[in-house]
Amino acid sequence: MLKVHPIPGKDPWAHGAISTAEWRGARLSDILDAAGVRHEDGLHVAFNAPDVAPEASPVQAYGSSIPLSKAMSEEVLLAWQMNSEPLPRVHGGPVRVVVPGYIGARSVKWVKRITVQPGPSENYFQALDYRILPPESDPGTAKPGEGISLSSVALNCDILVPGDGAEVPAGPLTIHGWALAGDGRGIARVDVSLDGGHTWCQADLQPAASRWSWRLWSLTVEALSGPMTLNARAWDDTGVTQPESAAGLWNPRGYGNNAWARVDVNVLPRRVMPRP
Amino acid sequence: MLKVHPIPGKDPWAHGAISTAEWRGARLSDILDAAGVRHEDGLHVAFNAPDVAPEASPVQAYGSSIPLSKAMSEEVLLAWQMNSEPLPRVHGGPVRVVVPGYIGARSVKWVKRITVQPGPSENYFQALDYRILPPESDPGTAKPGEGISLSSVALNCDILVPGDGAEVPAGPLTIHGWALAGDGRGIARVDVSLDGGHTWCQADLQPAASRWSWRLWSLTVEALSGPMTLNARAWDDTGVTQPESAAGLWNPRGYGNNAWARVDVNVLPRRVMPRP
Repeated sequence: MLKVHPIPGKDPWAHGAISTAEWRGARLSDILDAAGVRHEDGLHVAFNAPDVAPEASPVQAYGSSIPLSKAMSEEVLLAWQMNSEPLPRVHGGPVRVVVPGYIGARSVKWVKRITVQPGPSENYFQALDYRILPPESDPGTAKPGEGISLSSVALNCDILVPGDGAEVPAGPLTIHGWALAGDGRGIARVDVSLDGGHTWCQADLQPAASRWSWRLWSLTVEALSGPMTLNARAWDDTGVTQPESAAGLWNPRGYGNNAWARVDVNVLPRRVMPRP
Repeated sequence: MLKVHPIPGKDPWAHGAISTAEWRGARLSDILDAAGVRHEDGLHVAFNAPDVAPEASPVQAYGSSIPLSKAMSEEVLLAWQMNSEPLPRVHGGPVRVVVPGYIGARSVKWVKRITVQPGPSENYFQALDYRILPPESDPGTAKPGEGISLSSVALNCDILVPGDGAEVPAGPLTIHGWALAGDGRGIARVDVSLDGGHTWCQADLQPAASRWSWRLWSLTVEALSGPMTLNARAWDDTGVTQPESAAGLWNPRGYGNNAWARVDVNVLPRRVMPRP
């Protein structure tokens, strides 16, 4: 989105901030059941953390919430173990929330209080920050609750190999990437295009590790020398695919970009390929 | 999609086949509970109808299925009343299935048998017809189960007024349309563009009649004389919006087009406007 229009004050994560892990803990629904929470429509479950965020206005500790209906689903955990090790401090140990299918900001680290309440969290990050504002909005004067609150993650994919700007030899080129469907959906197909989206080839999908983790894909194409643009797009199991371009998705806080993946590479004739 | 590439054998519904109705009947989940159906993951509920479809290969009666998890949701009905009248024969009377949020083909008319089974329906229309095939596929030789089975309806919107090709007077022009979010989601915003999607204005949303019906919107703009293209796009309450163009969505059976709505009109200078 930064290539479309500047977004002041935001770090460009680009192809980063993507990972998967195996979590172990207690189901949040079991905790809420034990606390006698009744399942009523429209309730929310708010999480309070101890980390004070200087960028919040006013300065405050981090907090956020999810709908009670999501909190009661079997996939939402209070996790104390990550990849078979005690949860490291930097990842939210001793105990953090894990909300599969939702933006990371809802998986609150170092959680210290859980509240069932009639409305969503009024914390700065939920009421003001993690929201899609219309393009003409000024984030500096936006009011709490303005815009669309981010919740479940949208269908998306990216190209991992080759990297953006890479130099690759002419000949067979294997492209690797990942894809993730929205909340509770599966990836049905991933397409790769070498001509800007005019024609597409289907990539090979690796089995899904779980319905909540990204899915790896790969495709081998014939790379001809010269500049080459690689695009990728995913389809979910209901037949939905991604928007073409970030231009139509641009918003003042730079969230929710799920446009086609794009990587530009330079294909070198075999004889001038530099030695590794 | 027909403007992108021909689709033999399909009727262009264009802006048609859009309506809403008030349904009354029994919850399918109550019927299944009464029949002693146990809630196991991966089961499907198949519906058989008596109407024989000559276009099916081989010729067979209509049938389709939905996942048991959807069948057990409170919104799925066996309906015998439509808009406070007994369900007319042409709409599936005496009893039809109504599956809100799913493609119409799952709301089976004149239902005569309901089967809980391990896999989806093998009926021609589910296994072969209502599927998104890759662009290069030949529908004539596609095998059962190929492509992506249509199920929940994707986020979409359309412009109802003015109609495509309409002549309208210069000056204030009120644009009306509808928007529908995917299965169980809400519409958060509808944008209208007069410059091909470069800039957008937010439309006014009417209250939703229910979370399953489309939502009306309107916006008054200033129409300047000459040809004018109107685009509209919707955002759902998770921050997802529609793809830009049908070109990237084209598929051999012409399904699932949820690209931006587009209507072309001719704006006449006030003095040469024909009298009604």
